[in-house]
Amino acid sequence: MMRTRPLKVALLGCGVVGSEVARIMTTHADDLAARIGAPVELAGVAVRRPDKVRGGIDPALITTDATALVKRGDIDVVVEVIGGIEPARALITTAFEHGASVVSANKALLAQDGATLYAAAEQHGQDLYYEAAVAGAIPLIRPLRESLAGDKINRVMGIVNGTTNFILDKMDSTGAGYQEALDEATALGYAEADPTADVEGFDAAAKAAILAGIAFHTRVRLDDVYREGMTEVTAADFASARQMGCTIKLLAICERAADGESVTARVHPAMIPLSHPLASVREAYNAVFVEAEAAGQLMFYGPGAGGSPTASAVLGDVVAVCRNRLNEATGPGESAYTQLPVSPMGDVVTRYHISLDVADKPGVLAQVATVFAEHGVSIDTVRQHGRQDGGGEASLVVVTHRAPDAALSGTVEALRKLDTVRGVASIMRVEGE
Amino acid sequence: MMRTRPLKVALLGCGVVGSEVARIMTTHADDLAARIGAPVELAGVAVRRPDKVRGGIDPALITTDATALVKRGDIDVVVEVIGGIEPARALITTAFEHGASVVSANKALLAQDGATLYAAAEQHGQDLYYEAAVAGAIPLIRPLRESLAGDKINRVMGIVNGTTNFILDKMDSTGAGYQEALDEATALGYAEADPTADVEGFDAAAKAAILAGIAFHTRVRLDDVYREGMTEVTAADFASARQMGCTIKLLAICERAADGESVTARVHPAMIPLSHPLASVREAYNAVFVEAEAAGQLMFYGPGAGGSPTASAVLGDVVAVCRNRLNEATGPGESAYTQLPVSPMGDVVTRYHISLDVADKPGVLAQVATVFAEHGVSIDTVRQHGRQDGGGEASLVVVTHRAPDAALSGTVEALRKLDTVRGVASIMRVEGE
Ligand SMILES: NC(=O)c1ccc[n+]([C@@H]2O[C@H](COP(=O)([O-])OP(=O)(O)OC[C@H]3O[C@@H](n4cnc5c(N)ncnc54)[C@H](OP(=O)(O)O)[C@@H]3O)[C@@H](O)[C@H]2O)c1
Ligand SMILES: NC(=O)c1ccc[n+]([C@@H]2O[C@H](COP(=O)([O-])OP(=O)(O)OC[C@H]3O[C@@H](n4cnc5c(N)ncnc54)[C@H](OP(=O)(O)O)[C@@H]3O)[C@@H](O)[C@H]2O)c1
Repeated sequence: MMRTRPLKVALLGCGVVGSEVARIMTTHADDLAARIGAPVELAGVAVRRPDKVRGGIDPALITTDATALVKRGDIDVVVEVIGGIEPARALITTAFEHGASVVSANKALLAQDGATLYAAAEQHGQDLYYEAAVAGAIPLIRPLRESLAGDKINRVMGIVNGTTNFILDKMDSTGAGYQEALDEATALGYAEADPTADVEGFDAAAKAAILAGIAFHTRVRLDDVYREGMTEVTAADFASARQMGCTIKLLAICERAADGESVTARVHPAMIPLSHPLASVREAYNAVFVEAEAAGQLMFYGPGAGGSPTASAVLGDVVAVCRNRLNEATGPGESAYTQLPVSPMGDVVTRYHISLDVADKPGVLAQVATVFAEHGVSIDTVRQHGRQDGGGEASLVVVTHRAPDAALSGTVEALRKLDTVRGVASIMRVEGE
Repeated sequence: MMRTRPLKVALLGCGVVGSEVARIMTTHADDLAARIGAPVELAGVAVRRPDKVRGGIDPALITTDATALVKRGDIDVVVEVIGGIEPARALITTAFEHGASVVSANKALLAQDGATLYAAAEQHGQDLYYEAAVAGAIPLIRPLRESLAGDKINRVMGIVNGTTNFILDKMDSTGAGYQEALDEATALGYAEADPTADVEGFDAAAKAAILAGIAFHTRVRLDDVYREGMTEVTAADFASARQMGCTIKLLAICERAADGESVTARVHPAMIPLSHPLASVREAYNAVFVEAEAAGQLMFYGPGAGGSPTASAVLGDVVAVCRNRLNEATGPGESAYTQLPVSPMGDVVTRYHISLDVADKPGVLAQVATVFAEHGVSIDTVRQHGRQDGGGEASLVVVTHRAPDAALSGTVEALRKLDTVRGVASIMRVEGE
C-alpha cells in the first residue's frame, strides 16, 4: 500500500553531514520508500556557496535562499544541518510555521533553546527530532525518550565528545602530553583548527544539557551545566590514574540527587576504573552509560561523529517523521513535567584524587588529615612518597570517600594555606565505582 | 492537557516479569500518566493459580479466565507475559480482534509465528510491540526498527543469552569445566532446572530469527537459524583461545551476504579476540554489536533478563502503544519487503580453529596442508606441539582464513579419514575480526 505522492525533504546545509544525507537519500531511495510507505524526495538544498560542486546533487535543487525554501509550503520535513544558533533557529521556527516537521543535528541550538523550539513545534502540530545531536550515530535520544519511558533514569554518564576521547586515549596509550596528542588529533582530522569547543568541554556540556533534560523529564539549560575542560590533564595524571587501576576520560554526567528532588549536570575529566565499560572506549568513539531503576545498567556505544554516521541518525529521524505524517500524528514532544531544580556543582557528591607536594617531615600527614576532617571529608587512601633526594620534599596522594564537591574544594582551599603544603600538583574527580 | 479516561491494561501472566510490570505500574502511575498524556490503569490480571498471594495487586483484578479478559472490549493494551506458544498465541490474536494492542516478551512465539501475529495486528489496526523479547532491558528492537531505519544493517552479532554467558565467563575466569560452571549457574539461579533451552542455543536461536528479520527487512523463521549449543566447550578450548588472544562466547550472528542477495542466521560458540567489545561482556549480561553501512559499528549492552529489567522494556512499549492510541495511530508494523532468501550454514563465510591429534612423524603437516588446499581452504597459522613423551603423537592447531563453512566442514571430514590424524580434538569458529 505505497502512497505515490512523495514526501518532500528540504535539506538546510550540505557540508560534512548534509552531503551524506543527500547521498544516502539518493542511493537508498527505494529502501527508504519501502520503510516509510511512500517515496521521499529531496526537494531543495540550501547552502552558502551555490557554485561549489556537489557530486550527485541535481544543481537545480541548490539554493542560497534557505528561508524561501522552508516557506515553500509543500515541504514535509526540513533537515537542519547548518549548525550554530542563527540562521538555524529562525529557519526551524519558520519551517514549523509553514507546516513542516524538523530533524536537526544541532546540539548547540538545542541545548540553548530547546524549550522554545519544542513549544513552536507543538504549537504548529509538528515534530522535532534530533537523534544526531548527541553521540552521532548512537541511538540514544530515542532509547531514552521511548524505550525507557516506563522506567526511572537515575544517572547518565558518557563519553560524548570524540575529539577529546581521541586525545585522552593517545595520552593514555603513548604517554604523550596534552599538546602532542592534540597535534596528532589535528593532523588526523579529529580536532578542528580551533579545538576550543571540544577541549574546553562546551560541546560535551551542550550534550549533557540535552541528555539531562530528556533523562529526568525536566528542563536543563546550558548554563546549568558545570563545565571543566581537559587541557590541564597531564601525563603525570595518567601515571597516577594507572597506579589506582584507573584511566582518565572527559565525562558528561547527569544525576538525580539521592532524595530525587533535584538533578545535576556536569562535564569534567575524571578517573574511572579500568574495569568500567567506559574505560575501554578507544579513539574517537563515544559511549553512554545509563542507570535506570528497573532496567539496571545499560551502555550504548558507537561512532560519535563523522558525516555518514551522523547522516544515519538524521535519516532514522526522517523515516520516523515521515511515518508520523502518513499517520497524521506526531511523535513524543518535550517531556518536562517534573520541573526539578538543577543543583550547583557544590552539591554533587563525588570523590577526589589529590596530589600534594609537601614538606618531608614528621606531622605533615596529621596536619593534612586534620584539614580533611575539619571539612567533613573522609579519606579513603593515602600514599606518601619521600623524594629520597634529601630535598626535604615529599608527595602525598590522597583519595577521598564520597563527599559534596563544595566540601572537597573547601578542603583543597584550606590545604593550599598550610605552610607544609608546597603545592597542589593535581586534583581529579574519581567516578564510576 | 491530560485526558482523564484512563487507558486500560490487561496483564496476562504475573510471574517473574508480570509481577514487576504490575508493581511499576502501581508505584510509578503518576510518571506513566505524565509521559503518556493520560492515566493508565491495570484492568485485570490473568494467572493460572488464583489463590497465590500477589503483593500489591488488588485481588479483585485476578482472574484465571484470560480469554474473557482480552474479550472485554474496553482493554487498550494487552501485556502478554505468560510465555510459550499456547495459550499465548490465541490470546494475542483474540486481543487484536477485540480492539486491543499487544505488548509481548515472548521470543519463542515471535520467532515461530511473528508473521501471523503481525498480520493479525495489521488487519485489526493494532500495535504489536516486543522490545523485551530480545536482550531483556536493552533497547534493541526499537533502535533497529526505528533509529536505523534510514541505514542498511549488514551484521548483527550478539550475546543474547545470559545463562550461557554466565557459564562461559565462569569457565574462562576460573578454568572450570562446563558441568561445574553449569552447577554454579544453577545454584545462583542463573540457569533453570532444565537448562536445555539455554545451553543448546534454542533461546538464542529464537532471538537470532527475530533480529535477522528486523535487521534485514525480511522473514527469517526459527528453522532457518543454524544452531549449535555450547555444552561441548571444554576448559581446553578456553586454553587454546587464550593462546590466540581470544575468549569463547555463544554468539547469535545474523549477516547479509557480500552480494547483498541473501542472509544467514546462526547460533554457535565462537572464539573472539579479547580486544573485541563483546569479549568483555561478563556474567549474565547481554550485548549486541551492530554493523550498519552508514552508522558503522554500534554496541548495545545491559541486563538480558530478570524481572525488573524485562519489565522496564515491557513498560517502554506500553507507553509507546498508549501514545499511539491517543494519536489514533499505530507504530511501525512488520517490515519484510526485501524477501531475501536465508542461506544454509554451508554458505556462511567464517574461520575455523581446529585442534588435531596427529602422528608425530615427518610429512604429517604436508599431508594435512594438502587436505586444506584440496578443499580451497587457506591456512592462516599452524602450531605444532610434539608430545615429547615418545608416544609418537603430536598436536596440530590450525587456524584458517575465511572460507565457506561447507568447505571448512568438508576439510574436517577429510582430515578425519587420514591415517595420520588420530583424532579431531576440537573445532571452533573464530569471529569478530
Ligand atoms: N560533522 C559531524 O561529525 C557532526 C556530528 C554530529 C552533529 N553535527 C552537527 O551537524 C551540523 C552540521 O555539521 P557539519 O559538520 O555538516 O557542518 P559543515 O560541514 O560546516 O556544513 C555546514 C553546511 O551549512 C551550510 N551553511 C552555512 N551557513 C548557511 C546559511 N546561512 N544558509 C544556508 N546554508 C548554510 C554550508 O554551506 P557551504 O557548503 O556552501 O559552505 C554547509 O553546507 C552542526 O549542527 C553540527 O554540530 C555534526
Ligand atoms: N524471566 C525473564 O528474565 C524474562 C526475560 C525476557 C523475556 N521473558 C519472557 O517473558 C515471558 C514470561 O516469563 P516469566 O519469567 O515471567 O514466566 P513465569 O515466571 O513462569 O510466569 C508466567 C506467568 O504466566 C501465568 N500463566 C501460565 N499459564 C497461564 C495461563 N494458561 N493463563 C493465564 N496465566 C498463565 C503464570 O501464572 P501463575 O503465577 O499462577 O503460575 C505466571 O504468572 C516469557 O515469554 C519469557 O520468555 C522472561
